[in-house]
Amino acid sequence: MGIGDDCSVEDVGGGRARLLTTDLLVEDVHFLRTRIPPEDLGWKSLAVNLSDIAAMGGEPRAAYLSLAIPADMDVAWLDRFFAGLEDLAARTRTPLLGGDTTSSPGPLVVNIAVTGEMRLGRVKYRSDAEPGDVICVTGCLGDSGAGLRVLLDGLPDTGDEGVLLERHHRPRPHLEEGAWLAARADVRAMMDVSDGIDSDLQRIMERSECGARVDAGSLPISDELRRVGEARGWDTAELAAAAGEDYCLLATVAADAWVGVAAGFAGAFDRPLYRIGEIVPADEGLSYELDGERVGLGRRGFDHFAGDGADDDADEIGDPDGEDGR
Amino acid sequence: MGIGDDCSVEDVGGGRARLLTTDLLVEDVHFLRTRIPPEDLGWKSLAVNLSDIAAMGGEPRAAYLSLAIPADMDVAWLDRFFAGLEDLAARTRTPLLGGDTTSSPGPLVVNIAVTGEMRLGRVKYRSDAEPGDVICVTGCLGDSGAGLRVLLDGLPDTGDEGVLLERHHRPRPHLEEGAWLAARADVRAMMDVSDGIDSDLQRIMERSECGARVDAGSLPISDELRRVGEARGWDTAELAAAAGEDYCLLATVAADAWVGVAAGFAGAFDRPLYRIGEIVPADEGLSYELDGERVGLGRRGFDHFAGDGADDDADEIGDPDGEDGR
Repeated sequence: MGIGDDCSVEDVGGGRARLLTTDLLVEDVHFLRTRIPPEDLGWKSLAVNLSDIAAMGGEPRAAYLSLAIPADMDVAWLDRFFAGLEDLAARTRTPLLGGDTTSSPGPLVVNIAVTGEMRLGRVKYRSDAEPGDVICVTGCLGDSGAGLRVLLDGLPDTGDEGVLLERHHRPRPHLEEGAWLAARADVRAMMDVSDGIDSDLQRIMERSECGARVDAGSLPISDELRRVGEARGWDTAELAAAAGEDYCLLATVAADAWVGVAAGFAGAFDRPLYRIGEIVPADEGLSYELDGERVGLGRRGFDHFAGDGADDDADEIGDPDGEDGR
Repeated sequence: MGIGDDCSVEDVGGGRARLLTTDLLVEDVHFLRTRIPPEDLGWKSLAVNLSDIAAMGGEPRAAYLSLAIPADMDVAWLDRFFAGLEDLAARTRTPLLGGDTTSSPGPLVVNIAVTGEMRLGRVKYRSDAEPGDVICVTGCLGDSGAGLRVLLDGLPDTGDEGVLLERHHRPRPHLEEGAWLAARADVRAMMDVSDGIDSDLQRIMERSECGARVDAGSLPISDELRRVGEARGWDTAELAAAAGEDYCLLATVAADAWVGVAAGFAGAFDRPLYRIGEIVPADEGLSYELDGERVGLGRRGFDHFAGDGADDDADEIGDPDGEDGR
């Protein structure tokens, strides 16, 4: 137990597990100080850590903040940063118990550590997916990546763009969803969506020694992203698969339990648990389908195979090896 | 419990406490990358956190490392950094369980979090000093500050200078000493010496609502520091009081238990528990004596009072208010 999951897990006796996660955010690497309101940066810095606790199924216990502060930063900025952080801390009952503050000769640096707790037997790891499992996510994908594009391109807000930007700046850690899923033995592997399912699924695949087949057309897209994407000609499925920072949860569920788990989730949270694909044997790797055909995810988004890779394969499109179970 | 001590303390039931501490080290603020061997930086980054665990009396459980790495840093440097960190981790049985690595557009940034555990009833805080308590430290003071001076002035090594530099670069966290002192109910307040006793005692004073009187002549000085200090005309008592980064422990002990605690410590560790002063009522503040006279600690070291401050006082030197109990 330890390295390789979203949190470290420690057996503290009495059937309880302690979780700990720590994330380092560096100005100009993870955020642009001039482009994110300080309240939002405070919120997001804590949210990404709480999302790691959610990914194991835990409840947060306390947060610890270390800040390296550049000389040009004023007190008003810091007050606003703390206001955003404390807003989320209060909503999630995660007291800020300590930390460290120092000066920085360069970028603003924010390190947050969060501890959590849960029943040891309920902890969900990345390593427990099995071929046949349904792959699902607890929220829409791509909004955060679209929000970043809104920010960087300076797009005007028709109503939808502001919502996407908010989802980029103020992700909601799926703590309740994580705890709910952790309580179900039929939920097997779980993690949070930080880099996009295209990257994150590969982590489950490595740890669980399996492959994954994703129906690109089933990736849940919010109404806001669908409208903005249509207006601007974006490949929303590519944003959903690869843009990342969604901070919802990615889980696998035993196939015969899927209907019951999905119904229970919908009843508890008034929105679907989105089915996006299934776990397959390791030798199938990660593949995507769209409208029943195998597609590839490239730099310009999803596309039907042509040229290079497909030339190696006599059957090309429609190759049963690529699409059917074995 | 929480902010204000060296670690946060959490009651986890069963009479046990969980400790957590986190420290952020920033290049050019806390260290000069070109002036400290990478192994030593790895060691010291972990040591300062382990010292916080020692300060409460705890045993370390696990460490978590976050690194923001500048583009110009090579793999060999990182390998050496990890070697030093893992050396101390192995010696203190503190497994490195996780963390986060990212790039930095500016300085190298190291954040380490360490968890610890101990009996809840034994946790030592800064807030429990009482007037009459003996003030003591678990090791010599000033070596680390002298080592920094050796480093910055580029002094040649006659044998002693190398030892001082080693104490600056590879402080030893006083974990065994902390656990031993924590097991004694007559040991009241405790913390580690990070900024020098002149600063650190004021933290105990604030939290315990008391004052402190220190015998500057009793501050323990190593043979190495004494020899180098004599050769170079340094005020070794000032280095001992104010230079900091010693990472030994500063504690207060009930006066009637002092002889027994000191004898027990000497028996357990084969070196003295150094008595350096006593806790006094809050209205006496922090004062120093040297050869029975009250002295002040200024930028140029300890000095007998003269000029400014003393002019306000009709009795000047020998003022019983300054030196006698009330």
